[in-house]
This record gives sequence, structure tokens and C-alpha cells, in this order.
Amino acid sequence: MPTVIYADHAATSPLDKCAFDAMVEYMRDEYGNPSQTYEMGRRARKAVDRARESIARCIGASPEEIAFTSGGTESNNWVIQSGAAMGRAVVVSTIEHPSIWHTVQRIGAPHRRTPIAVDRSGIVDIDLARQAMNDMPRPGIVSVMTANNETGVIEPIAELSAMAHRYGHWMHTDAVQAVGHLPIDVKKLDVDMLSASAHKFNGPRGIGFLYIRDGIDIESFIDGGDQEHGRRAGTENVAAIVGMAAALQNNVDHIEENSFHLRELENIFKTTLSDFGVDCVQNGSECKLPGLLSMGFEGASGEGLMHLLDLMGICVSTGSACDSVKTRLSRVLTSMQIDESLVRGTIRISFGKSNTIEEVRRFGGALAKALKIGR
Amino acid sequence: MPTVIYADHAATSPLDKCAFDAMVEYMRDEYGNPSQTYEMGRRARKAVDRARESIARCIGASPEEIAFTSGGTESNNWVIQSGAAMGRAVVVSTIEHPSIWHTVQRIGAPHRRTPIAVDRSGIVDIDLARQAMNDMPRPGIVSVMTANNETGVIEPIAELSAMAHRYGHWMHTDAVQAVGHLPIDVKKLDVDMLSASAHKFNGPRGIGFLYIRDGIDIESFIDGGDQEHGRRAGTENVAAIVGMAAALQNNVDHIEENSFHLRELENIFKTTLSDFGVDCVQNGSECKLPGLLSMGFEGASGEGLMHLLDLMGICVSTGSACDSVKTRLSRVLTSMQIDESLVRGTIRISFGKSNTIEEVRRFGGALAKALKIGR
Repeated sequence: MPTVIYADHAATSPLDKCAFDAMVEYMRDEYGNPSQTYEMGRRARKAVDRARESIARCIGASPEEIAFTSGGTESNNWVIQSGAAMGRAVVVSTIEHPSIWHTVQRIGAPHRRTPIAVDRSGIVDIDLARQAMNDMPRPGIVSVMTANNETGVIEPIAELSAMAHRYGHWMHTDAVQAVGHLPIDVKKLDVDMLSASAHKFNGPRGIGFLYIRDGIDIESFIDGGDQEHGRRAGTENVAAIVGMAAALQNNVDHIEENSFHLRELENIFKTTLSDFGVDCVQNGSECKLPGLLSMGFEGASGEGLMHLLDLMGICVSTGSACDSVKTRLSRVLTSMQIDESLVRGTIRISFGKSNTIEEVRRFGGALAKALKIGR
Repeated sequence: MPTVIYADHAATSPLDKCAFDAMVEYMRDEYGNPSQTYEMGRRARKAVDRARESIARCIGASPEEIAFTSGGTESNNWVIQSGAAMGRAVVVSTIEHPSIWHTVQRIGAPHRRTPIAVDRSGIVDIDLARQAMNDMPRPGIVSVMTANNETGVIEPIAELSAMAHRYGHWMHTDAVQAVGHLPIDVKKLDVDMLSASAHKFNGPRGIGFLYIRDGIDIESFIDGGDQEHGRRAGTENVAAIVGMAAALQNNVDHIEENSFHLRELENIFKTTLSDFGVDCVQNGSECKLPGLLSMGFEGASGEGLMHLLDLMGICVSTGSACDSVKTRLSRVLTSMQIDESLVRGTIRISFGKSNTIEEVRRFGGALAKALKIGR
């Protein structure tokens, strides 16, 4: 059996060797608790500080603006739950990740606003966004993701931030899919808060961060000890923090070549499908994350394709990973007004930097075969 | 320089080799997302399932009753915050960990009750507990820790549980210091919820669990994907979950011999101090965690002792790790009505299974020396 072709990097990505190597020392030898002031604790504290500085530099922030969390889901819950607890109304787009979407459902009705719709290309409607921000009691919170997890479509965050600030709201962006894959500068995006998750950029699981712009006084979400300047309690996960910093630095250092490689893989993949005479539709705008393709095959079953490909040793997703245990129509694709038959026939392909041209060609051929079997 | 003597296991404990080894496979090769239904995802799901079964077995629970979290702090926040959000009043003891104590401060005044005091031995006053439970609108939540993090004193959880249930309340226990060190059976303790953290029992950081008895419908705390049966969203930290299960199993398999070894270390330590003519007071009841000693030295400075010992390569704590960046009088010790001068002269020593008799003797001698310098 040939080796598995992993094309589901938007669900989770393999841990970079540099990140693994950085973690091992803190898993095995340097186990000091950074809250303790003896030498072993101080060394652990320094490792956390260095990681924080490195991560801040990668996104144009100051170290004090980075708070470590257990991942993107916690970061997103923090913003929405603590924001609502502070009496702020929240408006989001219709295509947000479940960790925003379901959390917004949970906060009380007075805090929840009608979400901002997207157009057929998957981009938020700027006029609707303006209207929502105008209608919302200020100060509120606007939360729109940087790049969508199902289509990869990139949202106009800087434009939305400027607008949110004109209306006196905080601007948050869930950048879980974007950090480490697109050049991210929080100053250029002009956001007040930004969520990230390490395992989406070849870092470890169970660790992420929330960028909180200096001066934004959002309440803590998880209370207890004084960690993270009293903003997020719990013993620091030093090994994971160090691994996250190494992975992010590595991806940022190679962002252009990774991006170029992923675009090349996409093109070869599409050409291969075309050579096999496969008809398909790419959902959403071309202004998107490199390597992520939402491909619709009219009359096919995305679910069925995923299983057939699995039998051929190829990993792809139907919807977003976080929702895939329930088979239901993708909220993201339906809110883009894509026909139900095409939504049902869609798979999400997300290449990673370690995928090869040979893999992508083999995958294209396998998909063509699966489409014939599936029909 | 001789090797460091680590005697701060209550702050954090070194990762067991068996846990590290179990994690490596899931960090390097088996990186599938358990939410995905292809083969790689299913293998990861199976690893999570096996870990859940093993952990459940270790505490006498069913696998469905275990929900993975990012650690003890999150588990404790979950109970208090979600409980209060469901309209339940909360009563805790005066010696709870900051992740309970500060979270109780945060919930609204109508939900917060006067905490239950402890006696001079550090054990909650049963009559006050009964009164608090009687005065509280039902259904409420009673939360008392299994063993205290500063003194190691074990609380009468089964008795409190029976009482809480008679009054129609939920019983929660923060067992972060106890799991993996004391035999824990949730059925015998009769608790409805129990918090644990892997790095306190030689597992990895950033992972823990909340036991939720079947039928207890506490709301989720972190929302998003359908992970943990919709009770805790976020991509599963497979490597850490697998590592936690391995560490817990290892500790539970050797709980008697570890306990015996730690009691021996304690005795040798106390004898050594006595041989050096050191006067000291052990704070709290002898009914406590093996290996954890809260030692008061009249007229000394715990802070100063900690620093002197650090210079001699010995790691101990003043108060609990989570509070130690701020130097303030221990809430736990003052609520035990220990004189302020003794509280100021207290250090927390917490031996671990890998400490040796030779280390403990050397430590005793070093402490005697430090006490002479410090005076």
C-alpha cells in the first residue's frame, strides 16, 4: 500500500521537526514551573518569555499583548463570552467557525445581533457590515474571521476594523487558519484582538494565543493564579508554548516559498483533474489561503468521495473538521448561496508544505476514479 | 555543583518516561484529527477512547463520565462558572485553590455564599458545612478540595457529599493534588464532579479532566465543535491525552509503593532536622498527602529560606505555586488560624517518587544551615 496522502491540513497539520525538538527539552528536563522563583522556575519563565517575544514579533505585536490559551477555540470563547459579560453586544459573520458561532448562540439574546451575510464569493457584505455596526449599541464587538476554514476565502479585515473603530466597537478576528500561512501584521489589520491556534501552523495541539491590543481591557475568562499577567490562569504549558513559537517562526521565515509551493500544487491538481476530464466548481473567491480548495462536484456526494478517497489512502474533509462528526449541510457554503446539490458534492482539500507534486498528481487521478465509482 | 534536588512536586511534577514515550508517537506520526472519519482520524479517535477508558478505570468512573480539559484550572472554572450560569449558588471552603477561590469571587454576589471555615488542623468544619448547605437555596453547588495544595490535608469528601446530596446540592471536589497520589474512587467519594490535572501526577502540562457523574447536566463552558460529546469544544490534544492516561495508570499501579517511599522520605527528613537540632512545626493534620509537608520555622522567613535553598540547588515553595509571584500571607494557613509569624516562616516541601533518601538527608542538612544563615 502506498503511503497516505494527507490533504487535510486545515483540520490539523503535522508538527514541525523544529517544534518537536524544541519541546523535548521542556518535556524531559526543564520541567520547572514558571511561577516559581527558584532557578529552575526562572529558566522556565525565560523560555516562556522568549517564546512570547518571538510570537509577538511574527505578528507585529508587543510581547505583553500575547496571552497564551489552550487553543483557538478557547481564544474565541474568551472574546465572545467575556465581551458579552462586560455588556457588549456582538456581531459576527455568517461563516464563522463553530467556536464563534455556537458561543454567540449561547450568550443572551440582548447581546446577540443578526449576523453579517457574505456574498457568493464568500466575502462579507461591507454594506451589511456597516449597517450592523451602526445599529449596534456601542461599545460592542465585531468578530469576523481572517480566512475561512472551509473555503480559505480571505476577509477584508483592515477595512472592517477601520469601520468598527469609527462606530466605537472592538474588532476581533479569528485568524486560526491564517496565522503562519498569510503575512499577518496586527497593526496593519488594525484589530483589537486576534485568535490563533498552534496546531494549524505545524505547532503542537492544546496551545494557542489571543492577541489583545495594549489598552483593551477585556475581562479574563479562566480565573485562578496570576499567570499571563492575571489574564489567563493555569500552569503554563511551557513545552507547547516553546513548540508553538518554533513552528510559527519557521512558517513565517518560509512563508513566501511555502505559499509559492502550495499555489503550484493547487495548479497541478486542477490541471490533473482537467486532464482526466473532471468537471468541478471551486467554491469562493480566488483571494484565499494558498493550498486550500473547496471543490464542488455536481451530482456527487462529498461524504461518499471522502470515504472512497480514504480507501485509496487519501485524507480530505467534507466540511470543517469541527463539524464533521455530524453530517449536515455546511452553514458556510449555504450562506454563500451555493446550490444544495453542489454543497452536498463538495470536499475540502487542504494541502500542506510537505505535500509533493507527485502526491498531488496521484491524488488527482484517484479523485477522477472515485468520481466515476461514486456516480 | 551537585545536581538539583527538586522538592516542589505539588507545583508540578516531572513527566514520567512512560508518558513521554506514549506521547511521541502521537506528536510525530499519528497526527490525525479525531473528529475526522478517515482512517488516520479513526486511529486518533481510538487512542483518545483507550485513554478515556484507562483514566475512567483509574478513578472508578465510566468513560462517558470523563471530559478532557486543558487542566485543573479550566475544570474548576467550568464547574463554578457554568454552575453559576445555571443559577446555582456556590459554597466552597476557605482553603480552596485560586482557580476555585478567584472564580467564586467573579460570579455574581447572589450566587456566592460565605465560605466554610476550617479548623486548626486544616479540615473543614462539618457543622459549618451543614449550616452552609442548609442555608443555601437548592439546588446549589458545594465545592471542597480532596487534598489541600499547601498542607496536603485530606478533607472528608465522602461525608460532605452525603450531606450535600441530602440537601439537594451537587458535590464537586478539586482533586488536582490527590489524583494519582491517593486511591480515588468517585463512587466511594460519591461526588458529582471531580477536577484533575495531569502535570500533578507526572503527566504532561496543558491537559486535565473533569469527571461528570452520569446524569449531571452541567452546561458546557467552552463551546464550538462537537468534541467531548459537545461538552468541551476544541481539537483533542491526542498526545497529551495519551500521556495523561499513561502517567495516571503508572501512578495508580504503584500507588502503595510510592506512598510508602514518600512516607519514608518524610520521616528521614524530619529525623535529619531533629538531628541538627532544628525546631519546627508541621502545619495541618497528619491525615494528608504523602510527601507534602508544610513546615513552619518560628522567626524565619519562608521567602528567605526558599531563596537560600535555591542557592544550594534545592527547589521548594513558600505558598502555593499559583500564588507565589505575589508575596502575601497564605490564605490557607491564615484561615487555619496559624500565627502570622509562623505563616511567614513556612515553606512547602513536596517530595516526589523519584526523590532519594540521600537527597532528603542532604536537603535536611542544607535547611539546618539555611536557618542559621537566615537568622
